[in-house]
Amino acid sequence: MGVDKMRIEHDCVGTMAIDDDALYGIHSKRAEENFPISNEKLHPLIIESLVQIKKAAAEVNLKAGTLDADKSQAIVNACNQLLLGRYSEAFIAPAIQGSAGTSANMNVNEVVAHLAERMTPGLKVHPNDDVNQSQSTNDTFPTAGKMAMLKKLPALLTAIESLKMALLDKADRYADTVKVGRTQLQDAVPTTYGNTFKAYWSMFSRDTKRLTAAKDALTEVNLGGTAIGTGLNTTDLYQATIVPTVNQISQLSLTQATNLIDATQNCDAYVTFSSAMKALAVDLSKFCNDLRLLASGPQAGLAELKLPAKQAGSSIMPAKVNPVIPEVVNQVAFQVIGNDTTVTLAAEAGQLELNAFEPIMFRDILASETYLANAIQTLVANCVSGITVNEDRCQENVEHSAVVATALSPYLGYEKTTLLVKRAVKENRSIRELLKTEHLLAPKLVDHLLSPANLTNQKVSHALAQES
Amino acid sequence: MGVDKMRIEHDCVGTMAIDDDALYGIHSKRAEENFPISNEKLHPLIIESLVQIKKAAAEVNLKAGTLDADKSQAIVNACNQLLLGRYSEAFIAPAIQGSAGTSANMNVNEVVAHLAERMTPGLKVHPNDDVNQSQSTNDTFPTAGKMAMLKKLPALLTAIESLKMALLDKADRYADTVKVGRTQLQDAVPTTYGNTFKAYWSMFSRDTKRLTAAKDALTEVNLGGTAIGTGLNTTDLYQATIVPTVNQISQLSLTQATNLIDATQNCDAYVTFSSAMKALAVDLSKFCNDLRLLASGPQAGLAELKLPAKQAGSSIMPAKVNPVIPEVVNQVAFQVIGNDTTVTLAAEAGQLELNAFEPIMFRDILASETYLANAIQTLVANCVSGITVNEDRCQENVEHSAVVATALSPYLGYEKTTLLVKRAVKENRSIRELLKTEHLLAPKLVDHLLSPANLTNQKVSHALAQES
Amino acid sequence: MGVDKMRIEHDCVGTMAIDDDALYGIHSKRAEENFPISNEKLHPLIIESLVQIKKAAAEVNLKAGTLDADKSQAIVNACNQLLLGRYSEAFIAPAIQGSAGTSANMNVNEVVAHLAERMTPGLKVHPNDDVNQSQSTNDTFPTAGKMAMLKKLPALLTAIESLKMALLDKADRYADTVKVGRTQLQDAVPTTYGNTFKAYWSMFSRDTKRLTAAKDALTEVNLGGTAIGTGLNTTDLYQATIVPTVNQISQLSLTQATNLIDATQNCDAYVTFSSAMKALAVDLSKFCNDLRLLASGPQAGLAELKLPAKQAGSSIMPAKVNPVIPEVVNQVAFQVIGNDTTVTLAAEAGQLELNAFEPIMFRDILASETYLANAIQTLVANCVSGITVNEDRCQENVEHSAVVATALSPYLGYEKTTLLVKRAVKENRSIRELLKTEHLLAPKLVDHLLSPANLTNQKVSHALAQES
Amino acid sequence: MGVDKMRIEHDCVGTMAIDDDALYGIHSKRAEENFPISNEKLHPLIIESLVQIKKAAAEVNLKAGTLDADKSQAIVNACNQLLLGRYSEAFIAPAIQGSAGTSANMNVNEVVAHLAERMTPGLKVHPNDDVNQSQSTNDTFPTAGKMAMLKKLPALLTAIESLKMALLDKADRYADTVKVGRTQLQDAVPTTYGNTFKAYWSMFSRDTKRLTAAKDALTEVNLGGTAIGTGLNTTDLYQATIVPTVNQISQLSLTQATNLIDATQNCDAYVTFSSAMKALAVDLSKFCNDLRLLASGPQAGLAELKLPAKQAGSSIMPAKVNPVIPEVVNQVAFQVIGNDTTVTLAAEAGQLELNAFEPIMFRDILASETYLANAIQTLVANCVSGITVNEDRCQENVEHSAVVATALSPYLGYEKTTLLVKRAVKENRSIRELLKTEHLLAPKLVDHLLSPANLTNQKVSHALAQES
Repeated sequence: MGVDKMRIEHDCVGTMAIDDDALYGIHSKRAEENFPISNEKLHPLIIESLVQIKKAAAEVNLKAGTLDADKSQAIVNACNQLLLGRYSEAFIAPAIQGSAGTSANMNVNEVVAHLAERMTPGLKVHPNDDVNQSQSTNDTFPTAGKMAMLKKLPALLTAIESLKMALLDKADRYADTVKVGRTQLQDAVPTTYGNTFKAYWSMFSRDTKRLTAAKDALTEVNLGGTAIGTGLNTTDLYQATIVPTVNQISQLSLTQATNLIDATQNCDAYVTFSSAMKALAVDLSKFCNDLRLLASGPQAGLAELKLPAKQAGSSIMPAKVNPVIPEVVNQVAFQVIGNDTTVTLAAEAGQLELNAFEPIMFRDILASETYLANAIQTLVANCVSGITVNEDRCQENVEHSAVVATALSPYLGYEKTTLLVKRAVKENRSIRELLKTEHLLAPKLVDHLLSPANLTNQKVSHALAQES
Repeated sequence: MGVDKMRIEHDCVGTMAIDDDALYGIHSKRAEENFPISNEKLHPLIIESLVQIKKAAAEVNLKAGTLDADKSQAIVNACNQLLLGRYSEAFIAPAIQGSAGTSANMNVNEVVAHLAERMTPGLKVHPNDDVNQSQSTNDTFPTAGKMAMLKKLPALLTAIESLKMALLDKADRYADTVKVGRTQLQDAVPTTYGNTFKAYWSMFSRDTKRLTAAKDALTEVNLGGTAIGTGLNTTDLYQATIVPTVNQISQLSLTQATNLIDATQNCDAYVTFSSAMKALAVDLSKFCNDLRLLASGPQAGLAELKLPAKQAGSSIMPAKVNPVIPEVVNQVAFQVIGNDTTVTLAAEAGQLELNAFEPIMFRDILASETYLANAIQTLVANCVSGITVNEDRCQENVEHSAVVATALSPYLGYEKTTLLVKRAVKENRSIRELLKTEHLLAPKLVDHLLSPANLTNQKVSHALAQES
Repeated sequence: MGVDKMRIEHDCVGTMAIDDDALYGIHSKRAEENFPISNEKLHPLIIESLVQIKKAAAEVNLKAGTLDADKSQAIVNACNQLLLGRYSEAFIAPAIQGSAGTSANMNVNEVVAHLAERMTPGLKVHPNDDVNQSQSTNDTFPTAGKMAMLKKLPALLTAIESLKMALLDKADRYADTVKVGRTQLQDAVPTTYGNTFKAYWSMFSRDTKRLTAAKDALTEVNLGGTAIGTGLNTTDLYQATIVPTVNQISQLSLTQATNLIDATQNCDAYVTFSSAMKALAVDLSKFCNDLRLLASGPQAGLAELKLPAKQAGSSIMPAKVNPVIPEVVNQVAFQVIGNDTTVTLAAEAGQLELNAFEPIMFRDILASETYLANAIQTLVANCVSGITVNEDRCQENVEHSAVVATALSPYLGYEKTTLLVKRAVKENRSIRELLKTEHLLAPKLVDHLLSPANLTNQKVSHALAQES
Repeated sequence: MGVDKMRIEHDCVGTMAIDDDALYGIHSKRAEENFPISNEKLHPLIIESLVQIKKAAAEVNLKAGTLDADKSQAIVNACNQLLLGRYSEAFIAPAIQGSAGTSANMNVNEVVAHLAERMTPGLKVHPNDDVNQSQSTNDTFPTAGKMAMLKKLPALLTAIESLKMALLDKADRYADTVKVGRTQLQDAVPTTYGNTFKAYWSMFSRDTKRLTAAKDALTEVNLGGTAIGTGLNTTDLYQATIVPTVNQISQLSLTQATNLIDATQNCDAYVTFSSAMKALAVDLSKFCNDLRLLASGPQAGLAELKLPAKQAGSSIMPAKVNPVIPEVVNQVAFQVIGNDTTVTLAAEAGQLELNAFEPIMFRDILASETYLANAIQTLVANCVSGITVNEDRCQENVEHSAVVATALSPYLGYEKTTLLVKRAVKENRSIRELLKTEHLLAPKLVDHLLSPANLTNQKVSHALAQES
């Protein structure tokens, strides 16, 4: 191995030797040295989105007459290479970084500039004057962050859809499987597993709506605002066409914020989107808690559900099988809720014309999106789609349940029914049996009232009562 | 004073002596003894909403033929008295209570029943069989909780509107007051206080939208679902008319959830609404942080804003005046964010057919709504509407600011401009002055570039540059 | 009633008419008008503690020669009256207030001064110059806040002790009641209810230690630091004796912080104490979750525990009884965790020489202490002390449990034992029964291995194995 | 390339083809497939600690006579290889995993077993029966988690020490630099930068104490408890010697918990440790907020501090330099606070004999430790150690500050001083100048009162006042 050839780059702080093979430059390298927090690099979707912005700006600036044709072409060519995923090792800016994303933006500016020069020998392309022309970190970085979140979203929405489909499927399969309802973990009036799975489906449908609505918060970008939203150093043509051009390149549907100053300094859009994911996390966690509870056993638990066995559950207890998939989803939910706390604190900490803490917000939101999509996928594939109901157990529970007497209450009154239930529990006899002995109600009415159809659906025929 | 006459009431647990004057009964009294957490009683708007539901149910059950006319009338009469605000001392159920709101619902059932009997001597009205007919705590309590939140909301929205008006007013007043922008607390390109106030207005406009959207989550209720959402012990007529009847009485626009089982057990609606308030809290806190920072001084701070003096600021430092109103708003924001954590945990903790932790969610959400509305009102009246800008200070800052040189960058290039700015700061000379000496750009272009119009707005005339 | 006589008071902001009967003055009244957030007044223990500080300062300043004897005596006399709980209506400063507690401190200064004057006709006592002499809000308010927290703590610690006693009692009572252990909600190796209750006892013992350790963070006060910790406007004698004098009056054991500047501006002590309460909340919530789960049923749940019935559990389902006490404790836990979020945000928001957000921290910490103490008291009295174990159910579960086979694994090997367990579950036969058929191990060894003594304790006699 | 040779492994779920070169086995592979949440693998320190436990157990089980000498030796040999860092690619279990760490433990069991067999041809070593002998995931995994946290801690404590040293250094350097104090961001009485830096030192000293105390929570482990803390399938010798043996191998000072059942199921130790890191995060964030505020400018801010320039601050604003190091530390603080939320939720979610959510707790706590240590290191090296104070600016601010008049208040009274300050601010004259004109106090007393020594320290000579 020979000695690496180094080049000297300078910035307003001083000079630095950079490996001459590197596409990044002094700003990127300083970021790497200044922010050694973790090994995590900036999310590839943020990089990709920044490159798409650079490409769009080069095209627009050419039309506006502020960038030479050869520079514009060189920049576009370089961006095209990067958009193919090449040279990804040149993006060394850490995920957790100071300076509100300047390092991210400059890393991309430098890589594009160096690559443009390398691809067009003899041409000089300046990272700031040319690649970053008409732009500032303060508009490109948040725009790229939102683009990345939008690009991640379809996978999450698709995962939710597949979960909903799996639930509908189970709801169909167990539409008539009557089970004991439980409120406050105490036996309550009956329902069916059809109802149960359908209710989860209904719950997750709200998540789809919520995320789709929250997505709108992300489509509004401050691109064109440059440093603080006043759009200094841009042209009218740039203002008019930069966002549509980015849309064309990225296949997204961004809109330019009406108030670019507000859009540059305030981060409630991230809070909104993170909150929607938090609500999904709450729903997922409740769902997984229920699954784990209903599948408890196999002998000394509720044992109404059987989750697919996915791995040996214990290193010491032979044949033990655990609800490992819901468990990992619970943990993802806790992380998403924790990330929401981080996003909240970071958003609150913005000051005056800028929020310097976007990098951590972007990191956490993209992590939450990814974790949730992956968690739901494994939840569907490795758990929900293989759930079976222990129908014998359900039936047995319902038959022993005294709470079905609730259906008699409109006829016997709350107090008489109370005595009946207490007696049934004490004497370990079924309500139906007690009723036969006591002749409290007409047998036909009892049959109706205690029928699954009446107990688990909302069709009470008052007429029948008149007969008794 | 003589000895209080007591009556004996019983429930499924046993018997209890109750002051015979009391309108509440054994269930209410047990709640008071079981839940001595704080002195806070259930929110009056929850009580009011429960009473409205009781009244509606009595009307509907009459029509359905399941409740006698005299009982129905007696219940309605009692409810009408209570809706006038009378007998409020009878509602002794604590705000923080176990049993998913059973105590709240039974407190109302008991008060209505006793009052109905008192108002119609000789008539027997049963709290469960008559007042609670066709209902369960599990549908009435969450419905009443949502009704209470909806009733509180207009005050909050109105407060936000008044804040927005006050901000627009300031934006108009200071439309042309140029000021230094600051990103990451470092001097950045200029803007105007018109822009600044307008940006806050724009930010709070999103809060209006967000809360209005989140409100939709609250309008969908599970009334009619009874114990677990199956609607057991209700009639078809009840299902069809109970929600419209409640709307008629309460002047709200509730809708019955399509899936009552889901709506009974899942609490993401509260997470959604609480999150929207959290986003507002984040915005308010950022705004108040900015106000406090911009008003720092009076001598050794930024001192650009002057907030109205509202009280002496120190017991030891004479004449000190503090930004006390923003400070209290910051604290309300922190509480709202903390309450959102509580709501999140409570919502996640729901199990199977019910979430037993609605009482703490309702308490915290209603507290957050109230605190926010009150905080914004005092913020408008005692702070924002009286803010004045120290225009001399702003102008002075802008004139000394070297960052205006950013406007020259498209003409001089980033690197040459860097040197110019560093020299200006070092030699303590203005950019304009340096430019005159150096003849780097045509004076006319310089005048244009450094004009407030160019610096603070997004109208860059590229044509002008051609001339130089 | 005649017209109220008013007096005019002034401050650096202007003048105000105050009801002449009122002991409070203009600063207090302004606070009431500026901070109409909720109806909650400042916590009485903060008021009491401030009064104790005023009394101590009057005594010390007399000795230091900076306060006249008659003024000192008048202040002490007034404080003594207030410490008897009189005139509590004069303390109108809201709990949630801006200005870092200035309103709280001035409310006390004004009430003491007015009362001193009223009690000593002809004497002039100034709220700032006399009552507040050698003090600032910035040292008295945090000191009073910590004093209040310390005063509240014994009730919490006592409550924990009573919980621990109740648990030990249950551990003794059910020392030999074997039960199925459950990990990840799946049947695991057996344990006893003695072990179970003892483990909770052990867990809560850490809470006692944690709170006691965290208490140390509260005993260090910045009294004597005045405005920013430099102790400006105090005498050497005051510095030397003010904290001991406060201790004498309050029966607390405060120490003066070594670095008063740090102690004035940083709020990590509150974070520490709040975190200790959060850990207790986590423990309580886990405990209550377990109770609710183990008591689930009565028919279709685990039904191993029977919690005392405290109230009717449902307005619609007759005879239903819910775990209402654990449920209210869970909710308190959620609130304490939410309050910890608020405290964290408020502590983080401190700036430079002061944290202006102490009022919300004090409010939330005192609320958490109170809620926790009350919640634990009702938990002990109304739930834990009355718990009974369903011993038949426990025994039945253990007998049916195949997981006891784990004890055979060291002799049969993990894989053979796996097959055995799977067969037992599939054929619905007991492990013991299968072993008899299969002659896999010596009967004596089997008896030993499957004995409760071996299964639930950690005494494995390896010698026995040699025999087989 | 040829076709990979595969081997077939089986578990209680079924069979699976595993690359025959792989040291991991079926359980590890299933984990990889079941938990595809992120690319993050289990923390290397957890793996290392598990291997140390395996080695210790092999040694102890040999002595206890439950493991053959050749198996024991083979296991120890394999562990020694792994402890050198070899074969790290074999640890494929994801960081975020279900099943309470079973996959982590089994991954290590399998790798050790396979490697032992590979290193000792002909010998059979079983992952469960031999490597995992006397152990369960439920005691090894939490023990390894705590070991990992303890191993990470010294780097964090060292970083804090270096921060404290750097602060002391600055405190010495600027001991006499008088500056304006600021409370609630308003000018307050003066202090020195010596005081300021010393106060931060004092604050961080508490963090050292807090983390050291919290560390104790981690040293108590449940090793020996096996599945649920009863120690089933262990020998007396194992119980007596396993923890000391692990200590010998790891150089840690673990102790075995007195109550292994409690220690197996409750996770408050993690909450305690995470809370201590949260308190550090709060302190760091407050400190960095202060640095950023005091360094605001360079022209239109407070500009009292100058932070080292570490990188160009803007892609558009030439020569702008930002406080990038404090900014990244703020973000780490927000993440640590968010992670604490996650840990809290996960700890609260434990049920009965186990908490299944330890993996996410371990992941987040180890991440927080790492981030904090790294963040503080860059804070010291790249920021604090290079801070300089703008002494001219400080002096100028103090001279213009009217709040110094506070020192006159004991002599002039609060109200007269108020008027004086208001006049000074209004007429833009210094207090000293006004005093000269007004002859309110003896010049000598004024000189004393307004001297830096009096203003910034707590030595008030009351005697002097007698002279005037």
